[in-house]
Amino acid sequence: MKYNIGVVIWLTGLPCSGKTTLAIEIEKYFKYKNKSIQRLDGDIVRKTICNDLGFSKEDRDKNIQRIVYIAQMLSENGVNVVSAFVSPYREMREFAKSICAEVVEIYVKCDIEICRQRDIKGMYKKADMGEIDNFTGVQDPFEKPLNAEIIVNTGKESIEESLDKIVNYLSDKYEI
Amino acid sequence: MKYNIGVVIWLTGLPCSGKTTLAIEIEKYFKYKNKSIQRLDGDIVRKTICNDLGFSKEDRDKNIQRIVYIAQMLSENGVNVVSAFVSPYREMREFAKSICAEVVEIYVKCDIEICRQRDIKGMYKKADMGEIDNFTGVQDPFEKPLNAEIIVNTGKESIEESLDKIVNYLSDKYEI
Repeated sequence: MKYNIGVVIWLTGLPCSGKTTLAIEIEKYFKYKNKSIQRLDGDIVRKTICNDLGFSKEDRDKNIQRIVYIAQMLSENGVNVVSAFVSPYREMREFAKSICAEVVEIYVKCDIEICRQRDIKGMYKKADMGEIDNFTGVQDPFEKPLNAEIIVNTGKESIEESLDKIVNYLSDKYEI
Repeated sequence: MKYNIGVVIWLTGLPCSGKTTLAIEIEKYFKYKNKSIQRLDGDIVRKTICNDLGFSKEDRDKNIQRIVYIAQMLSENGVNVVSAFVSPYREMREFAKSICAEVVEIYVKCDIEICRQRDIKGMYKKADMGEIDNFTGVQDPFEKPLNAEIIVNTGKESIEESLDKIVNYLSDKYEI
């Protein structure tokens, strides 16, 4: 590490684009390299710190806000963070950059049709049928990053290829 | 440190008993010793991760729950934590011990009359007059710890004396 603070690796992308899969691989890589890492994703925070929140715009924003503050605390104490949330709104991703000192924004790009094929929980279908509201990609917009530091195309690349891109970038910039 | 995880130093006591003052001194001590430390207190979390919460029993419990989960993440990543919350309910303090691997419960004991004298914001008076509800020590109970690892009596000891007790305990047990 060039810095005494942790890096916040912020994955953003459509539901089922592969964010959590990649976050788990990134987590494994950091652990293998004996570096600190805290993974933050829906499975973790929605059972704990955000267990009172739903998926309305207001609740999504609150969810991201809390995650950003947690990422700030962790990274200020030298802990690296990888976060995997749809985080569809540019404003909230900019908020993360304004609060945390070192954020690497990664756009997990994937064609929505491929996301739908991967959707083992059938969430896209439920959203189509109106059983889920505020679903990103169906009722709600996904605002693509304008200046992501890394773009991985999980519809075309293998997980290993996407991970390589990320790891190469991080090791060049932060000596991780 | 004997362990590769952080210690969660949990201060509990009446409003104005001196928890935050002590937490700041503990924070300074850890920084002086070049050890990681994250202070968690009302001033910090109620502006950020808990900015939606009030002081009802339900909200207080949510507040403590989130703090416990944050303390867990920090300590699992090797960051020491000092938390300064009234945390009046035994159940929630036990919850902290059930979630975080290493909790040191410190009872910041102080006669309520001395707490009232120290109360520069006049919160006790407001509670007496019914302007504040659910105020611990006035309308709401404070459940004293049954097995606190350290008791500091801030009504009788100087800050230095209380800090010494805490630091001696921590350095014996955790080599901090």
